Amino acid sequence: MRSGPLDAETILTATEDVLRRHGPAKATVLDVARALGVSHASVYRHFPSKAALREAVTRRWLGRARDPLAAIAADPRQAPPERLHTWFTTLFTAKRTLLSEDPELFATYRVLTAEHSSAAADHVTDLIEQLRVIIADGVTSGDFTSPDPTATARTVFDATMAYHHPAHAPEWQARGSEAALRSICALLIDGLRPR
Amino acid sequence: MRSGPLDAETILTATEDVLRRHGPAKATVLDVARALGVSHASVYRHFPSKAALREAVTRRWLGRARDPLAAIAADPRQAPPERLHTWFTTLFTAKRTLLSEDPELFATYRVLTAEHSSAAADHVTDLIEQLRVIIADGVTSGDFTSPDPTATARTVFDATMAYHHPAHAPEWQARGSEAALRSICALLIDGLRPR
Repeated sequence: MRSGPLDAETILTATEDVLRRHGPAKATVLDVARALGVSHASVYRHFPSKAALREAVTRRWLGRARDPLAAIAADPRQAPPERLHTWFTTLFTAKRTLLSEDPELFATYRVLTAEHSSAAADHVTDLIEQLRVIIADGVTSGDFTSPDPTATARTVFDATMAYHHPAHAPEWQARGSEAALRSICALLIDGLRPR
Repeated sequence: MRSGPLDAETILTATEDVLRRHGPAKATVLDVARALGVSHASVYRHFPSKAALREAVTRRWLGRARDPLAAIAADPRQAPPERLHTWFTTLFTAKRTLLSEDPELFATYRVLTAEHSSAAADHVTDLIEQLRVIIADGVTSGDFTSPDPTATARTVFDATMAYHHPAHAPEWQARGSEAALRSICALLIDGLRPR
């Protein structure tokens, strides 16, 4: 049995562990409670339902990928065109690393993000807002033109879909995939330059 | 029982029909033979195995999508930037129409193209060659710059993945999807313009 207070973070860490071991189809709240040595009522005190617990663990996972990208998006030391390159290659290599280091967990989170589409949609909105900052900074610096940086952010995110949408994960390990992403970024950046 | 000679085209049409009715997991060569009122030996005379028959029907389906695109790619009446727009919107709307008019057949061909990856790869090579022609024509006309039209063709095909890869089919009916594809094309075309 565990000692000390039970907090939400501890429950989420145990949930991720249970999901990794049992798979998303079989993992239950009781498994999580057992892993923590507490009653399932203690878990429900923090998360009112199994769905709420699964959504919270999904949001935590998506948030973890988010923070290093937010730091890049807001970094004034890199000029906006280079920042856009760095942002996309960081997103791509982070996802590819997650996939290669722990394919079961990656597959688990694919199921969870499909299940909690509002968590996934909020994550995409957040990423597009980061891209908007880079593009707006580029408009200010004279590197880019864009009548609507949010719309442009959505377009560049869309155009790089093959390098962040999990449906394309099987192709990420292919030779030349990072270079192919860089070619798309270079063409998009040229398209954004003023003329 | 049917009369007249049995040709490959007749067998492929019957195969598509059987696949649509039974689904790709259950359809057999015997089903095809029965539908035609012939022995399965007659079918094997044209296609040496079930796999060969399935591959042939897959190639025929992919080829059907190909021809109107080839006509656009080679049409000198449209300037290369407009041709690139037309080519991608034609590819997208053709796929979306196939999906909405016959979702079972679309799902069947998703299974078949995954199974016969060389047929799918040849199809992509063919489409990229069509794009190469448009880009090379644009270089000649002074609308585009590209040090390597084949590589550029691959990049623009990659950047529009969300609008032709079947993994994204569930999103094709969304409002604004065609406009989103047009935004990507416009940005890519701007990226290709000489400066």
